[in-house]
Amino acid sequence: MAAATSSTSSLKAASCFSSFHSSATPASSSSPDQLAQSCFPRFTGLKVAFSSSSRTASSLLPTGSCSRKSLHSVDVTATAAVEAAPKTDVSLVEKSVNTIRFLAIDAVEKANSGHPGLPMGCAPMGHILYDEIMKYNPKNPCWFNRDRFVLSAGHGCMLQYALLHLAGYDSVQEGDLKQFRQWKSRTPGHPENFETPGIEVTTGPLGQGICNAVGLAFAEKHLAARFNKPDATIVDHYTYCIVGDGCNMEGVSNEACSLAGHWGLGKLICFYDDNHISIDGDTEIAFTETVEARFESLGWHVIWVRNGNTDYDAIRQAIADAKAVTDKPTLIKVTTTIGYGSPNKANSYSVHGSALGGKEVEATRQNLGWPYEPFVVPDDVKRHWSSHLKDGADLEAKWKADLASYEKKYPEEAAEFKKLISCELPSGWEKALPTYTPENPGDATRNLSQNSTPSERNVRFGVREHGMGAICNGIALHGSGLIPYCATFFVFTDYMRAAMRISALCEAGVIYVMTHDSIGLGEDGPTHQPIEHLASFRAMPSILMLRPADGNETAGSYKVAVENRKRPSVLALSRQKLPNLPGTSIEGVTKGGYIISDNSMDKKPDLILMGTGSELEIAFKAAEAVRKELGRTVRVVSLVCWELFEEQSADYKESVLPSGVSARVSVEAGATFGWEKYVGSKGKVVGIDHFGASAPAGILYKEFGFTVDNVIAKAKEVL
Amino acid sequence: MAAATSSTSSLKAASCFSSFHSSATPASSSSPDQLAQSCFPRFTGLKVAFSSSSRTASSLLPTGSCSRKSLHSVDVTATAAVEAAPKTDVSLVEKSVNTIRFLAIDAVEKANSGHPGLPMGCAPMGHILYDEIMKYNPKNPCWFNRDRFVLSAGHGCMLQYALLHLAGYDSVQEGDLKQFRQWKSRTPGHPENFETPGIEVTTGPLGQGICNAVGLAFAEKHLAARFNKPDATIVDHYTYCIVGDGCNMEGVSNEACSLAGHWGLGKLICFYDDNHISIDGDTEIAFTETVEARFESLGWHVIWVRNGNTDYDAIRQAIADAKAVTDKPTLIKVTTTIGYGSPNKANSYSVHGSALGGKEVEATRQNLGWPYEPFVVPDDVKRHWSSHLKDGADLEAKWKADLASYEKKYPEEAAEFKKLISCELPSGWEKALPTYTPENPGDATRNLSQNSTPSERNVRFGVREHGMGAICNGIALHGSGLIPYCATFFVFTDYMRAAMRISALCEAGVIYVMTHDSIGLGEDGPTHQPIEHLASFRAMPSILMLRPADGNETAGSYKVAVENRKRPSVLALSRQKLPNLPGTSIEGVTKGGYIISDNSMDKKPDLILMGTGSELEIAFKAAEAVRKELGRTVRVVSLVCWELFEEQSADYKESVLPSGVSARVSVEAGATFGWEKYVGSKGKVVGIDHFGASAPAGILYKEFGFTVDNVIAKAKEVL
Repeated sequence: MAAATSSTSSLKAASCFSSFHSSATPASSSSPDQLAQSCFPRFTGLKVAFSSSSRTASSLLPTGSCSRKSLHSVDVTATAAVEAAPKTDVSLVEKSVNTIRFLAIDAVEKANSGHPGLPMGCAPMGHILYDEIMKYNPKNPCWFNRDRFVLSAGHGCMLQYALLHLAGYDSVQEGDLKQFRQWKSRTPGHPENFETPGIEVTTGPLGQGICNAVGLAFAEKHLAARFNKPDATIVDHYTYCIVGDGCNMEGVSNEACSLAGHWGLGKLICFYDDNHISIDGDTEIAFTETVEARFESLGWHVIWVRNGNTDYDAIRQAIADAKAVTDKPTLIKVTTTIGYGSPNKANSYSVHGSALGGKEVEATRQNLGWPYEPFVVPDDVKRHWSSHLKDGADLEAKWKADLASYEKKYPEEAAEFKKLISCELPSGWEKALPTYTPENPGDATRNLSQNSTPSERNVRFGVREHGMGAICNGIALHGSGLIPYCATFFVFTDYMRAAMRISALCEAGVIYVMTHDSIGLGEDGPTHQPIEHLASFRAMPSILMLRPADGNETAGSYKVAVENRKRPSVLALSRQKLPNLPGTSIEGVTKGGYIISDNSMDKKPDLILMGTGSELEIAFKAAEAVRKELGRTVRVVSLVCWELFEEQSADYKESVLPSGVSARVSVEAGATFGWEKYVGSKGKVVGIDHFGASAPAGILYKEFGFTVDNVIAKAKEVL
Repeated sequence: MAAATSSTSSLKAASCFSSFHSSATPASSSSPDQLAQSCFPRFTGLKVAFSSSSRTASSLLPTGSCSRKSLHSVDVTATAAVEAAPKTDVSLVEKSVNTIRFLAIDAVEKANSGHPGLPMGCAPMGHILYDEIMKYNPKNPCWFNRDRFVLSAGHGCMLQYALLHLAGYDSVQEGDLKQFRQWKSRTPGHPENFETPGIEVTTGPLGQGICNAVGLAFAEKHLAARFNKPDATIVDHYTYCIVGDGCNMEGVSNEACSLAGHWGLGKLICFYDDNHISIDGDTEIAFTETVEARFESLGWHVIWVRNGNTDYDAIRQAIADAKAVTDKPTLIKVTTTIGYGSPNKANSYSVHGSALGGKEVEATRQNLGWPYEPFVVPDDVKRHWSSHLKDGADLEAKWKADLASYEKKYPEEAAEFKKLISCELPSGWEKALPTYTPENPGDATRNLSQNSTPSERNVRFGVREHGMGAICNGIALHGSGLIPYCATFFVFTDYMRAAMRISALCEAGVIYVMTHDSIGLGEDGPTHQPIEHLASFRAMPSILMLRPADGNETAGSYKVAVENRKRPSVLALSRQKLPNLPGTSIEGVTKGGYIISDNSMDKKPDLILMGTGSELEIAFKAAEAVRKELGRTVRVVSLVCWELFEEQSADYKESVLPSGVSARVSVEAGATFGWEKYVGSKGKVVGIDHFGASAPAGILYKEFGFTVDNVIAKAKEVL
């Protein structure tokens, strides 16, 4: 299947281009030690980190074969990890961790909706990340060099809201916590980057977040390779992520994690919240693979924290070990108890997705010795976290100073870097777009597209459409001026539709370059021939579906796609060669629909023929024939992008499609679904509402009625 | 995220139900040995099978780190496999294998389109499977107990066509091979079960086929557990599959293979065509994970055949070893050379997806010493394969005799079994469907649905929507009367859309029970709220999109879904409770659109209100208000399934939606895209063309205008 195997993506910087050096690093370059490590018995490859205190918590460990496996593996390797990191004030840490737990408990309780289990179990790793490990500036959530955090298990978002609140982000005040999951609040039911400063990406659909994290880490590595100098580092941050069992079951996460291993993303550190529970009950019912061994097979460094509920030092040690391995991403399996602290609901699915209930909340307060009212942050905890305001400001100031000295040594690179991360397009960039006349030789719009994406700027994704889309979302949301565009067959948008929908929702201006956009691909047959795909994206909110007809319209489509930085674009491009038509223009494409040909002398035409992409030529030729044979006035309209056309003024739309003209025919090699809007009840549609077939494209066009004669016949019916 | 974590599926037999026993087998029940095996160093867990002749072919082995790793691993375990299976007439086997290669070369050359590389590399394993291993009857491709074969790397379909031709299937004659990839031929560009008897499933979109194979093996294990007796076996076949690098990169294959390991599908045997080449070039550019170790982590038994080009005995030995392990599926990694035999194009991407070209075909004939004309099958090869006609007939006769004696001992089970595999629904089954009146308490249509799917009939898929859909396709195409239906949140159809499209294309009557079908799910927010999904499936060919409004319509939707065995159905079900409306009926649903309320006394009403699902109640109440307040005649139409409504007679459609009535309003909590068809240019639509939000459902309905008052207001605009 050529389709997916041609999945590629390019990183296009607004101001200039670069290749991603690390993609050339094969796993085979890892040292013998690393090879040996990933050859060890299951778990032996893992550093097992726990402190002497861990036994006290062992009663909290879930039972069942997974944990039995774990115990077995510990027996194998217990000697491997004895010394723990230096102790800090455990009581205050404990208090902060419980603050996080109860902010989550209280918010879910007030909303009577949400997922308290994960925040209660992941509070320790959350506290350590935001209080001890991560670099960020609460007063400037967009500071370029901040560490990124992604909660891939997005349903546990109260964990992140509680942490942003403690860290001092203005976006999550006490009032916001009390509005959890309510209309117009800044604390929606899943993390949404476009609602809450401090949230990097939009998660919830499982598996997407870890892929976004791969994209964020990819962007950091790309920019570091491009701008850092031996004596000056200006791009240098980690990407942290928390994934759950659900994320690890989703195929999309395996695609992205395979690429993360291939790319050697050493600054990507993922915590696997190993709590053995999903909504249906114990993961044992459907999830008995060895996740650690799978990640090792993908080229990851894997560590296991046996007691993630109370063994803070083990979590600290694991992060230190993760940072020590710079050529592989790290998975830290952290065994936790979902709903930790709830005497009657911990370690059960009942705490996964619903409020504890007043009685159990009370019991949990008793159990964890928590005397405070709902939503209260104890003063000493507040005081402790308040230091992050100054620390964050200092971190950003230090980076700015570093950038200033970098600028002295490397003025050109510094200028390019600052231009890039400002996310502005270079003025006049669009002048570089090619234009075409009918005299220019025809070509496939997919090739007219390639003219502006030389292969040396490509990143290979292999046959992983879904991971590609989700990774591109992460690259776009890195916010550093990179414009990711990715390519595969149009029909295989079905594989990455979930990621594309999130592009649209989370305002990631990813450009989807989708080739082989109709039955025109020919012999590969119906499995590879899009039919309903144009309609399916026209129905999707906040995404631009463009189907250019020739060179000018392909250039115009890129202009639209590049300029829409908060809205993804889908370019449907033909496999077959197409002639350059008179009347097409870049400017026309920016209006979504426009007149390419008309002999009505500004009067209302007798007939309007509409088309997109490869069929616009058919409409154009049919119009010429109708004018000649029937002496009628005919207008030809290119409806290259319905969304943009709908955004034009009523006057403009009326000027293109006068309501007085009911004789209308559309022609498009796709489902007719939706065309009634433009042809009206008296019009005719030429399209295809069944699957295609395997045969040469020319034969398919003839057999399925995409011919000038058929359009003329339909025109005669409506005239 | 409740959504995907609630992914489940049920096997519903036409005549009765059963639970799938094996799904209760946790990996932890595997013996210490098995645990030990999957703990071994990379590859040490693998039996490496090769014969003494293998070295002679080592020059054909691709280079690069993958093969280096392999050699390393061989050194580790070479001692593990010495004795080979008894030799057969190698020269004739060689000749048969080359026949397969040249039939593929010649067909692709004649079509000047296709993928010759895989058939040339996989011809040896293909020959051994179809000539020495598989049980089938060429004259009855539907014989129940046949071994199933799936070419997951569907682009290599000339391999399968050549094998079906040699084996004596009527569906692939010499003339069919000469019509490869041509209009109306039985040899399309990818395998299509609905075009070519002998093809089990439709493949091409990478990763789907291996999932279908998991479904076929699952169905066999389910039926074997249900009908086989200690003294009588009537269900007993293997499922074989060939996967390529592309299939292994796709996340969907990881999802299904994780389940295959969890379910312990011991009679699933997959060959991994390890040829290091995909369309872009060496897989090294994007695929450096250790596939074998990943499959071991998924609970598979893994074997490696070092030289799949010429070491026939190693392939035979590997299959024997695979059959010896009965509690795990087996992956046989077979290292091959893509385009084997082509002196200038072998082991390069140029042979992946295009014809060799006359000159290279000639060079390949020279290189492999092939004196025959295109499409010629040498007489001795023909004679050798001709035995399969008698052998196949004997195999089926033997099975029929076994079934007869089973019938004597177990008449009831035999009757049930024969009824089941006849794929007939029991007469009067639909009488079991519940009906409701407005007096019945309201409920969520998702619960009204659960009433007919007790959990003990459920198979847990975990959070693996895409794998679930593709596996259900395999279960449906097992052709044994099983009716698979699967469930998740409606919005997560985005994760499995590629599998659902193939259900529609390949005539697999899978029932997709999709819950939480609108913003009505509330607090989970826009990531979980479907908007464009109804439109996106209405635009898809050959699939039924049903959105029932209450108990009667839910029952009716099941009637439609169960009776449509060659067309998949999507049931969009609400999370929120809905009342039972007067006028709804099972029969109405079977017509797709029908009148549930009208006060026009068979005259044309002043106004037509249309709705589906949870909004039909709003239309119903608005109609009552308009009648009362304005004294007008109003008709309420349920458009529960657009596809079925379009299939009704013109008279019926006119009787429901008289063309003379232009005052029309539609209300549906989804994208308005497509509704113009029914409301016309003068009508109004109440819908939502932007993403939803996180808040209680009631508030969202009010804020987004899904209220009786808003529908009344729109009605006044059109009256």
